Amino acid sequence: MQIAIVLYDRFTALDAVGPYELLSRIPEADTIFVAEQPGPVRTDTGSLALVADRGFDEVRRPDIVVVPGGPGQTEQMTNPRLLDWLRRVDSTSTWTTSVCTGSLLLAAAGLLHGRGATSHWLALDELTELGAQPTSDRVVIDGKYVTAAGVSSGIDMGLTLLGRIAGHEHAMAIQLLTEYDPQPPYDAGSPAKAPAQMVENLRAGARFARASRS
Amino acid sequence: MQIAIVLYDRFTALDAVGPYELLSRIPEADTIFVAEQPGPVRTDTGSLALVADRGFDEVRRPDIVVVPGGPGQTEQMTNPRLLDWLRRVDSTSTWTTSVCTGSLLLAAAGLLHGRGATSHWLALDELTELGAQPTSDRVVIDGKYVTAAGVSSGIDMGLTLLGRIAGHEHAMAIQLLTEYDPQPPYDAGSPAKAPAQMVENLRAGARFARASRS
Repeated sequence: MQIAIVLYDRFTALDAVGPYELLSRIPEADTIFVAEQPGPVRTDTGSLALVADRGFDEVRRPDIVVVPGGPGQTEQMTNPRLLDWLRRVDSTSTWTTSVCTGSLLLAAAGLLHGRGATSHWLALDELTELGAQPTSDRVVIDGKYVTAAGVSSGIDMGLTLLGRIAGHEHAMAIQLLTEYDPQPPYDAGSPAKAPAQMVENLRAGARFARASRS
Repeated sequence: MQIAIVLYDRFTALDAVGPYELLSRIPEADTIFVAEQPGPVRTDTGSLALVADRGFDEVRRPDIVVVPGGPGQTEQMTNPRLLDWLRRVDSTSTWTTSVCTGSLLLAAAGLLHGRGATSHWLALDELTELGAQPTSDRVVIDGKYVTAAGVSSGIDMGLTLLGRIAGHEHAMAIQLLTEYDPQPPYDAGSPAKAPAQMVENLRAGARFARASRS
């Protein structure tokens, strides 16, 4: 089973590495990091590069596609090479997946029209405008499309999909081996739980950033 | 504030990327991935490489040191270049930290003697033999030494340390931005919660692997 994880300039590292850490434990998995061109791809902080071992031209029929999000997603929304590749591999994939604002790229490629989906909580309005139907679940499965909420939710997405593909027993063993028994020191991980003023400040910042782009 | 995250052949990606995703959000953080030699370093699955931008010789006084674990840790236990570098940077660090079996490397460097610490649940006996005093907490802080349990626990470690350094408000905002509101689909993430037979099988496998090495 071939798993293609897409990289592009200024993606968010955990968006890609969360699902990778789980899905690469599918028995016989062949996991490939892929970008427009092979080579190192920098994350959003600029302080880390992951290596894309293959270019889009070399990865034609992956069984699973994983699209991470991150600040660089905005620029990719009008990149025909990325969007065409997504459409092409989606036509034969078993699962097409995203984390965070990666779902906006799937939507821009026309793959989420009318589908239940999710994204980073600050991007749900944009996901609606692109024709998807956001829900408040952390991991949303609609047919073969699996979208996850912001950044860290890719771990829950990866574990969920691992269970579907390799069975619950195997998924639980991998959960145990990765000691995924989360104990966050704060309870501010969603807009429903974080202080209201903090949520509003971040929403205002996101609105400003979006207005500046348009 | 300089953060040095150590890479070595066959480390586990999430061990490094979990803390990175949080700690790199410390205001003014200068995050550096470092290895014996600069260049791409392969993870334990072989299907991903992260780039070490600097070699040990170029990183001399980081404020925070992060040591990930992974299958490759075993080989590093007798690598004087790694162990000497750990001792050297620890002599001036503000925080010396590890995830998973990274704590065995700190212990092998002589840095955890008599200290409270933790590691991957399958490595706690070895940590004891190396002179540390394991506890069952997911994140253990003893003075400037912060050790985390297996793989995914580095996220909790990173968020905890982010709060200590940058304040609770900032840490909560980063938790919200990374949407760290974990919802694992199973509850098997620790040996206390997973099915007993699964735990025993994995313990037997680990004992066998260790016996084969000695």
